[in-house]
Amino acid sequence: MPNRDPVETERRIGVATRYWVEPGTTAAEIAAEALSRALENAGLAASELRRVIFVSSTGGDMLIPGTAHFVCERLGLDDTCDAFDLNNSCAGFLTALDTAARAVATGYGPVGVVAGEIFSRYLPVDKPRPYLVMGDAAAAAVVGPGRAGEGLLASWLRSAAELRLQVTMNHPGRTGVAPHLQFDASYDTLTNQAVEALLKSSRAVVAEAGIELRDVEWILPHQPNGRMLEIILDKMGFPLERTISVVEEIGSVGSASIPVSLDRLMRSGKVRPGDRILMTAVGAGTGYGALLFRAGT
Amino acid sequence: MPNRDPVETERRIGVATRYWVEPGTTAAEIAAEALSRALENAGLAASELRRVIFVSSTGGDMLIPGTAHFVCERLGLDDTCDAFDLNNSCAGFLTALDTAARAVATGYGPVGVVAGEIFSRYLPVDKPRPYLVMGDAAAAAVVGPGRAGEGLLASWLRSAAELRLQVTMNHPGRTGVAPHLQFDASYDTLTNQAVEALLKSSRAVVAEAGIELRDVEWILPHQPNGRMLEIILDKMGFPLERTISVVEEIGSVGSASIPVSLDRLMRSGKVRPGDRILMTAVGAGTGYGALLFRAGT
Repeated sequence: MPNRDPVETERRIGVATRYWVEPGTTAAEIAAEALSRALENAGLAASELRRVIFVSSTGGDMLIPGTAHFVCERLGLDDTCDAFDLNNSCAGFLTALDTAARAVATGYGPVGVVAGEIFSRYLPVDKPRPYLVMGDAAAAAVVGPGRAGEGLLASWLRSAAELRLQVTMNHPGRTGVAPHLQFDASYDTLTNQAVEALLKSSRAVVAEAGIELRDVEWILPHQPNGRMLEIILDKMGFPLERTISVVEEIGSVGSASIPVSLDRLMRSGKVRPGDRILMTAVGAGTGYGALLFRAGT
Repeated sequence: MPNRDPVETERRIGVATRYWVEPGTTAAEIAAEALSRALENAGLAASELRRVIFVSSTGGDMLIPGTAHFVCERLGLDDTCDAFDLNNSCAGFLTALDTAARAVATGYGPVGVVAGEIFSRYLPVDKPRPYLVMGDAAAAAVVGPGRAGEGLLASWLRSAAELRLQVTMNHPGRTGVAPHLQFDASYDTLTNQAVEALLKSSRAVVAEAGIELRDVEWILPHQPNGRMLEIILDKMGFPLERTISVVEEIGSVGSASIPVSLDRLMRSGKVRPGDRILMTAVGAGTGYGALLFRAGT
């Protein structure tokens, strides 16, 4: 019998609230706002950016042009940087951070990476699984030459066959019907596969950096639901104090999940110089991986 | 009075034929085929790739997961590389080539870059301007450590305010209606702006490499129509023999235009070691730029 008890639902999915934009709000709007605040924190003018990467799971506001260009427009940028859209579902922010770091390392930076997801456009109320968990969000990072000791220590990203087609959203140009987000595997299957993928990539990225998982001070896993966050922390042997839980408040927000928790972690005042932050994501239905970052002084 | 003479139309737009896939063919299919042939030319197994970038203007086959993962699937790849989708309209291939080169330069390669465009899904017959010029195509490059003397000499990419919203395709998730490609500016306005953008970025990229435009042996401009190709070559003072014209045969194919002409140039047997190849694109409505490549031995 389907569960119709909201308290029981909240307990099971670990999502109490989520934010949806006012209808008509664009992804470019919320992304520009997030990137603008990240620039303020970084003490940089938008015109100092060399590149803007807009990340989403859902294709942004238009198919042509890319939404990144509208983010530039909102920041008043004209001919000072390049811009493009990147899509790797929930793993998109890590992918973009990797490409941004490689751009900076080859002299092309700073790079603004901004994830902007408006899932509320694609959530018919008769599809309760996505309807109850998905939220809208935007979050950004500015990637530039690191301070002393600061930087990306290692990156491990993959595309795995077994993850394909577990969570899907059709392209309406191909199907002729309005798209909606769809979970094509059971809750348990999704959770188990996702947890395995997060564990595997976390172990791989610390191995690449030549350290142990227990050496990591902070772990920021992708948070598609509260239950999964608990399981992953438990399996890794991390207490809740070594992560920033955001899913109960904001729901499942695709590629914006990790940068929202990263932002809150950095603002918490708890990160000390030299601390290692492990970010790990799985785009159920697509790619997965982990990045290891060390905080500077 | 609208022109209804097919011969006159062909003369004016410079497109005689174009290829459309059989309905039902996916972008992943044609992209995997192109990437597979590029790997064959490079003498590499698909499993040696570290990253696959799928480039399109139109969002590929699904919104979730990214089409790059289906390209991996078709190449039999499982857990050997990462993969993501990149969209920067007609300039997408150059953007992807830039990010691929920066990945390789930081030790992360080889990278497969594949553009796959299926515009025929979005061409209602009552919109003759796009209907008459747009074609489907896929083309790929494998980016790895260069041979002696080979490599990317310079890259210059930008997002310009004045180019935004000249060519658009709405996101149906936002508009609720089936998308179609739309030209929002007049033919002359589009052509003039595009030619200016191509000239500006070509001059900028050779300046960055410390050479003159006349030092370049091969010029591969984005080819949205035959008329524009003539104008740009004329303005740059290049004879037709120093480019590869593809637009008359294949039409306007978005991000696949430059890699198709690059492929034909490399197969022509005319490129000598040390030759400089200038690729320049404008994604009308988005970004523009140029890359300068030197052929190896």
